[in-house]
Amino acid sequence: MVDFDNLPFGKVFTDHMLICEYKDGNWGEPEILPYGPIPMTPALHALHYGQAVFEGMKAYRKVDGTVSIFRPEANFNRLNRSAERMTIPTVPKEIFMDGLVELIKLDYDWVPFGENLSLYIRPFLYASSEFIAARPSDSYVFCILLSPSGPYYSGSVKVKIEERYVRSADGGVGFAKAAGNYGAAFYPTRLAQQEGYTQIIWTDHKNHHLIEESGTMNIAVVIDGVFRTPALSERILAGITRDSILTLLNDQNFPIKEGPITVDELVTAAREKRVSEMFGMGTAAVISPISHLGFRDEVIEIPTPDNGLSALVKKSLTDIRLGKVEDTFGWMYDIEKPVQHPTYS
Amino acid sequence: MVDFDNLPFGKVFTDHMLICEYKDGNWGEPEILPYGPIPMTPALHALHYGQAVFEGMKAYRKVDGTVSIFRPEANFNRLNRSAERMTIPTVPKEIFMDGLVELIKLDYDWVPFGENLSLYIRPFLYASSEFIAARPSDSYVFCILLSPSGPYYSGSVKVKIEERYVRSADGGVGFAKAAGNYGAAFYPTRLAQQEGYTQIIWTDHKNHHLIEESGTMNIAVVIDGVFRTPALSERILAGITRDSILTLLNDQNFPIKEGPITVDELVTAAREKRVSEMFGMGTAAVISPISHLGFRDEVIEIPTPDNGLSALVKKSLTDIRLGKVEDTFGWMYDIEKPVQHPTYS
Ligand SMILES: Cc1ncc(COP(=O)(O)O)c(C=O)c1O
Ligand SMILES: Cc1ncc(COP(=O)(O)O)c(C=O)c1O
Repeated sequence: MVDFDNLPFGKVFTDHMLICEYKDGNWGEPEILPYGPIPMTPALHALHYGQAVFEGMKAYRKVDGTVSIFRPEANFNRLNRSAERMTIPTVPKEIFMDGLVELIKLDYDWVPFGENLSLYIRPFLYASSEFIAARPSDSYVFCILLSPSGPYYSGSVKVKIEERYVRSADGGVGFAKAAGNYGAAFYPTRLAQQEGYTQIIWTDHKNHHLIEESGTMNIAVVIDGVFRTPALSERILAGITRDSILTLLNDQNFPIKEGPITVDELVTAAREKRVSEMFGMGTAAVISPISHLGFRDEVIEIPTPDNGLSALVKKSLTDIRLGKVEDTFGWMYDIEKPVQHPTYS
Repeated sequence: MVDFDNLPFGKVFTDHMLICEYKDGNWGEPEILPYGPIPMTPALHALHYGQAVFEGMKAYRKVDGTVSIFRPEANFNRLNRSAERMTIPTVPKEIFMDGLVELIKLDYDWVPFGENLSLYIRPFLYASSEFIAARPSDSYVFCILLSPSGPYYSGSVKVKIEERYVRSADGGVGFAKAAGNYGAAFYPTRLAQQEGYTQIIWTDHKNHHLIEESGTMNIAVVIDGVFRTPALSERILAGITRDSILTLLNDQNFPIKEGPITVDELVTAAREKRVSEMFGMGTAAVISPISHLGFRDEVIEIPTPDNGLSALVKKSLTDIRLGKVEDTFGWMYDIEKPVQHPTYS
């Protein structure tokens, strides 16, 4: 029995998964199978050369009991941008969207009820050829897994400005959701955690002068009443939460500045208490308030107001997702309620 | 039937493989199993987050018919250095070495005879937990595959100095044989191939002013009679072929300079015909002579003498590997000939 009151993140899977194979230059027929292990060769290309990309998005149970996915087409587009950079064949839109809808209809009852719960959706692509030579795979698998999930972080986080390790570089794959970016971040993150931090704030690869992202989230900071976030670049993942928040704030005529934030500027502003809020933005945690900013030997407290901008933005997003307010931006992709359970194995 | 005269690289596997699992903080008992698919969950951590590292080395059939591995302890040490950077538990030496010896003894007959043939050995480590959240896996698998292999490239290669894409950066994982480094290199390599090149010469992440590596090989260039290769750094894989060649040349008092080679210096020297040879160094191809150097719109021819330094070095290495000369550096790790085939499944 799944305990929906204490859902971990990404550990519980629904009854089904979607699998589609690419072979001989073509995508085959997508298949929906019972979730479970499949036979894979240990010479599986992706295990050796990391030719793999993924996505993460969520389906919500609205207050009227129906199910809706938040901006799946944005994730579809990003998956294919990631795929291109990793020399993986792009997935046709109908395979992605129709497969996703089929799968969620089948596992409709798995979408949890509750403000902080959702169905995490993990589409991914991996190289599946059985050879070990450092060139692109010949065959690939597109797969979608579904995982009912609770909140990612709970509470606010302590972040450390990282000046030794990097997540990405110009000319690299930081803008892609490439598997290897994540594994490479574990070690520096662990070091920061050993110092008592929750996450790292990545800085640029050249001089560590520019603020980039926070762990696996985009970063926002309100300095002197202006919402600031680094502009997108090849080094930064183009977050859909970030984009949605920018859209919301623009719509409300909130002062916004997308562009470079130097470490120096941020630290100075934080010291002078001109930072009214700072937070990470991403699908998993939605908004992750930052309470402490570590810079070298200094730890600066950052306000985490209950009724600040981040709380407002979070409420706006939640209201749209749960169908409590009108979806003026056309973000919710409704899933038709299945009349009865299909008798699919 | 395996056609040993036309062996591809990394496509044919021997009868057995070694598998050892890490769970609950401990490595279990290594097992030797028939080579073949094993059940894996699509939520396999390594497929999503690229927490995976590998090694590559070779066993040779000596002229006396016995089998010997080239410097396996160097690969063992490097595997664990890679593992550490990727927050993967290191493999105990006895599991690695004893497992390797057991496995090769069992598949002894698979080690091919012939100057250009060898048994490619692929030890690797991957994250095997069944969850999708961006933090280190709880469980891991150590595996060794064996693949009788022919030469990797045949003939000399055309390389292009890459000024747009990067393979690694300071603070990154370039020094580790992390899976994601390889998948990330496919796209820029494909672009170079579309321009008629075989491989890329990587340059540094800051300004593209420094020569780093060539594809998945370390690079060497003989300028004004001096053997030049970039010094090791966090951005460069510490190749065992490179180290062996440096050792050989040092032993022969050949003039060597390990240190920065700028793009400018290399291109100028090549134009002025002061480059007498240039080549890649790595386990797969051993030595890969470079015949053409592409820089922006220019293609400069590089000599590929039949009796030059690279040919000499290659012969020295081959003679040691095949047991034709004394192994003065203690590089060969002999495998005891099995008396009869064990009746292992
Ligand atoms: C590196 C990185 N930055 C930012 C984000 C946020 O993106 P999104 O809002 O689309 O989830 C993610 C993914 O969640 C990420 O992996
Ligand atoms: C990036 C890279 N550089 C260099 C090398 C050469 O190392 P080695 O001589 O140990 O095979 C390799 C591996 O083969 C590599 O992957």
